[in-house]
Amino acid sequence: MAVYTDISEAELRAFLAPYAIGELLSYKGIAEGVENSNFLLHTSQGSFILTLYEKRVEKADLPFFLGLMEHLAQKGLSCPIPVHPGDGPALGELAGRPAAVISFLEGMWPRRPMPHHCDALGKAMAHFHLEGRDFSLKRENALSVSAWRPLWDSCAPQADQVQAGLATEIESELTALEGSWPTDLPAGVIHADLFPDNVFFLGEQLSGLIDFYFACNDLFAYDLAICLNAWCFERDGSFNATKAVALLSGYETVRPLESAEMDALPILARGASLRFFLTRLYDWLTVPDGAMVVKKDPLEYLRYSRFHRTVATVGGYGYDPS
Amino acid sequence: MAVYTDISEAELRAFLAPYAIGELLSYKGIAEGVENSNFLLHTSQGSFILTLYEKRVEKADLPFFLGLMEHLAQKGLSCPIPVHPGDGPALGELAGRPAAVISFLEGMWPRRPMPHHCDALGKAMAHFHLEGRDFSLKRENALSVSAWRPLWDSCAPQADQVQAGLATEIESELTALEGSWPTDLPAGVIHADLFPDNVFFLGEQLSGLIDFYFACNDLFAYDLAICLNAWCFERDGSFNATKAVALLSGYETVRPLESAEMDALPILARGASLRFFLTRLYDWLTVPDGAMVVKKDPLEYLRYSRFHRTVATVGGYGYDPS
Repeated sequence: MAVYTDISEAELRAFLAPYAIGELLSYKGIAEGVENSNFLLHTSQGSFILTLYEKRVEKADLPFFLGLMEHLAQKGLSCPIPVHPGDGPALGELAGRPAAVISFLEGMWPRRPMPHHCDALGKAMAHFHLEGRDFSLKRENALSVSAWRPLWDSCAPQADQVQAGLATEIESELTALEGSWPTDLPAGVIHADLFPDNVFFLGEQLSGLIDFYFACNDLFAYDLAICLNAWCFERDGSFNATKAVALLSGYETVRPLESAEMDALPILARGASLRFFLTRLYDWLTVPDGAMVVKKDPLEYLRYSRFHRTVATVGGYGYDPS
Repeated sequence: MAVYTDISEAELRAFLAPYAIGELLSYKGIAEGVENSNFLLHTSQGSFILTLYEKRVEKADLPFFLGLMEHLAQKGLSCPIPVHPGDGPALGELAGRPAAVISFLEGMWPRRPMPHHCDALGKAMAHFHLEGRDFSLKRENALSVSAWRPLWDSCAPQADQVQAGLATEIESELTALEGSWPTDLPAGVIHADLFPDNVFFLGEQLSGLIDFYFACNDLFAYDLAICLNAWCFERDGSFNATKAVALLSGYETVRPLESAEMDALPILARGASLRFFLTRLYDWLTVPDGAMVVKKDPLEYLRYSRFHRTVATVGGYGYDPS
């Protein structure tokens, strides 16, 4: 839930003047996204999203994110497309913040993901991976394994206040992951944040992927590992193998996994659960209670981490790749 | 800023099934309104607002609010119109809350009101007052003079913590208003919350009034008194007589004020500033800091109250009705 910056009609009109998007009819702050301020614009030509990038997004990364959307859209993937003001750059400035106008994507994210959603997600993710291969810009994953130690160091002293024994457990898990993290696997541009609220559907059809603001170069299979966490657990914490199988087999209909990728899935899934655990824990401990952000429970991802530690092979997710 | 209740696509589709508004394409929580949860729907037939009424709105009052919008729209006023599911009632239930689908009104509210906005507001308000006269339902103003004493009683013990001397000052002002509050003036349905964010413009044209959830039967001139507070002070606290004159003269081009109404404006404006001071003070003291609501500074309205106490006649607002 987020609108951090309000804007006046006068400054918005001045900002939009060079864009060929018709006459402004309305703009409303929308309660989606936790990093940026987003407005839904209606103009005489249709609907658009205006995003003001708040300080948690690195300004230097914005050409990567916006360029990636354009690249993937040109390849036929359904995603929001940055609008350019004439022949100027998609990235502008409004209310002292980097800002961009992006096409509006109809569709709804599944509040309760079903196996058919996971199948469609797997296919779309594989297309994303394949079509991103010739994107010219690069961006390191700022939240991969090497970033977890500093995050953990800043949280560790307070961790046992959140749950007794947490300090020892996470220290041990982090050390294990640092020592066994795979590197020699197929890699390229990944989305890295394909949670259900970033995947839109119209009926049973996937209508597009949104929110590219964690996209980066990393292992393809790590994107799947993130989704094993974000899509395949039920609210009671149980793992839904049917959804995992739909996700993995959907993916493989478009891009078959190498056996080394398959073998690495459990460790990658442990890593993904630790990554979200750590960023949530960090926010839990540092974001003031009065902030306009719903802080997410880090312990949800601790439970996922513990589950993945019990999984030795992809068969433990119910998946038989033969 | 408000989305208190999230809804799933499945429950929304079930709710919308009897409405002839086309196929649902998207819905987004919007960060406007502080009392209810609002979603902007896109369907194959256009845009709509879905409102879930949260607990601060009395369910028994909803037929008045929704009926008033329909009544005024039929009279030609531009305002949101409740959509009925077939020949059923406009008021339904979704996610355990009273809910209604309402037409979407294009337009933008003025972040920085100018005299021409005040002129248009005055005219629209007068039309509202005239066209509401034959609306059949009644609703007492739950926040008029008789409600201020109980509000104040619950705040008074902590008032001096907000500003030293407040308890004595407000007690005295409240007693003065209770003793001199006018009753024998033209009355009817008023909006009672015509703040700038409830008045939309497209260019210089007023495109409509929204948010009828404080509408009630009360003195017409009290609606003007509210707007003398909400539209005519600058951010530095100074009173802008040009805006006040535009508001009052705009109003009078449609419905001339009786001399008794004109005479009562200073006391009504004192009452209006006290009313918003008291509800803001109450929220200030009782709403927890973690709530997803921006608490408004009550002292802004204390300053307005002090200004109005210096005004003896409408001439003190710069207005010469002759």
